[in-house]
Amino acid sequence: MNADDLKRIAAERAVEWIEDGMTVGLGTGSTAYWAIRRIGERVKEGLSIRAAASSVRSERLAEELGIPLVPLEAIGRFDVTIDGADEVDDRLNLIKGGGGALLREKVLADASDRFIVIVDGTKLVGTLGAFPLPVEIVPFGANLTLNRLKELGVDPIVRESGGERYVTDNGNWIADCRFGTIDDPKSLTVRLNQIPGVVDNGLFVGMTWAVVAAGSDGGVKVLKP
Amino acid sequence: MNADDLKRIAAERAVEWIEDGMTVGLGTGSTAYWAIRRIGERVKEGLSIRAAASSVRSERLAEELGIPLVPLEAIGRFDVTIDGADEVDDRLNLIKGGGGALLREKVLADASDRFIVIVDGTKLVGTLGAFPLPVEIVPFGANLTLNRLKELGVDPIVRESGGERYVTDNGNWIADCRFGTIDDPKSLTVRLNQIPGVVDNGLFVGMTWAVVAAGSDGGVKVLKP
Repeated sequence: MNADDLKRIAAERAVEWIEDGMTVGLGTGSTAYWAIRRIGERVKEGLSIRAAASSVRSERLAEELGIPLVPLEAIGRFDVTIDGADEVDDRLNLIKGGGGALLREKVLADASDRFIVIVDGTKLVGTLGAFPLPVEIVPFGANLTLNRLKELGVDPIVRESGGERYVTDNGNWIADCRFGTIDDPKSLTVRLNQIPGVVDNGLFVGMTWAVVAAGSDGGVKVLKP
Repeated sequence: MNADDLKRIAAERAVEWIEDGMTVGLGTGSTAYWAIRRIGERVKEGLSIRAAASSVRSERLAEELGIPLVPLEAIGRFDVTIDGADEVDDRLNLIKGGGGALLREKVLADASDRFIVIVDGTKLVGTLGAFPLPVEIVPFGANLTLNRLKELGVDPIVRESGGERYVTDNGNWIADCRFGTIDDPKSLTVRLNQIPGVVDNGLFVGMTWAVVAAGSDGGVKVLKP
């Protein structure tokens, strides 16, 4: 089975948690894509929900599939949000933001009763940190903010895309920080967010309600914290 | 003496710390204005420095006064940054951001060896919190971020200016949060910055090198932590 098959299988399992009447958060990226597709199928079959997305891209996809969207301003809490992740540790803490939408994804996850993460099994790790941690920083004084990040022992790389500096949906930049091993994700996220100029970072600590992971054989594991 | 006189007197004392060859951070607001004016006079008298500012407004003023400006990208650390504050507690922790530039001001303060705060004496308080704490939030999902702020026991007011929503230099909004009494500024700033959607907040904890306060009689007090 290829990676897309595994993502699709995990996504379909996660979408089973969605029920009539729910408010649903739609994630961003190549795994969330499969969840949105499956939600679209279920809506066509009669599922009645309302949804909002963490990116313009996911919003457009949902629109094409006929998923009823409501403005975020109309939503107090999400019953379920489904999203992918770049790494998942054994306490179900995450690194997210490889796709660049970490801040909006975190806002949704934080406002969700059930934040469900779908991954292929290769994303499960003992300890986070092999994947470079994305840190969203404001352009103003970025060199000073990068200096502060360097003091944490990393060499931050300001993300580019197609030869140009990558700019987030919020007008900020992403500094990818290769920590190697993150022993204490909770204290690291606090330290990072205390740096002036850091908007947020890709560590999602204690936010996960369940992880659905598809193994290379197509078997699905559901992990709970 | 009126408030402007007091601000000017405090500003002039603070500017005495600036020496030839220094890199100087210029703050923003009605008190920093007087410091920039005084720096301009000293530059005309022969003081040789380079400077960068925390707002377009201060940058323009500095330019008019002939203060040599360098791009922030060319600066690693500031020797001295001089700025105002809205409240100063007895440990020299601050509330800043009444003028809306808290994030840029904090980036400069954080990158400064000597962060000098100038106020008139009415800004000195035992405990912070009578002044509403400005919290800079991203527009995306602002209602969800405001919900999180409300859970801290405040009723955040999204700032307006001239009947329109106020937008910071970084494209964000300001939520003014009247805490009344802030017993533990350090833990509050950590809590606030952990909320997804909060970019930063106006608490400056442990950053102050000195406060110069002008009393109503025109006498100047220098406070150190």
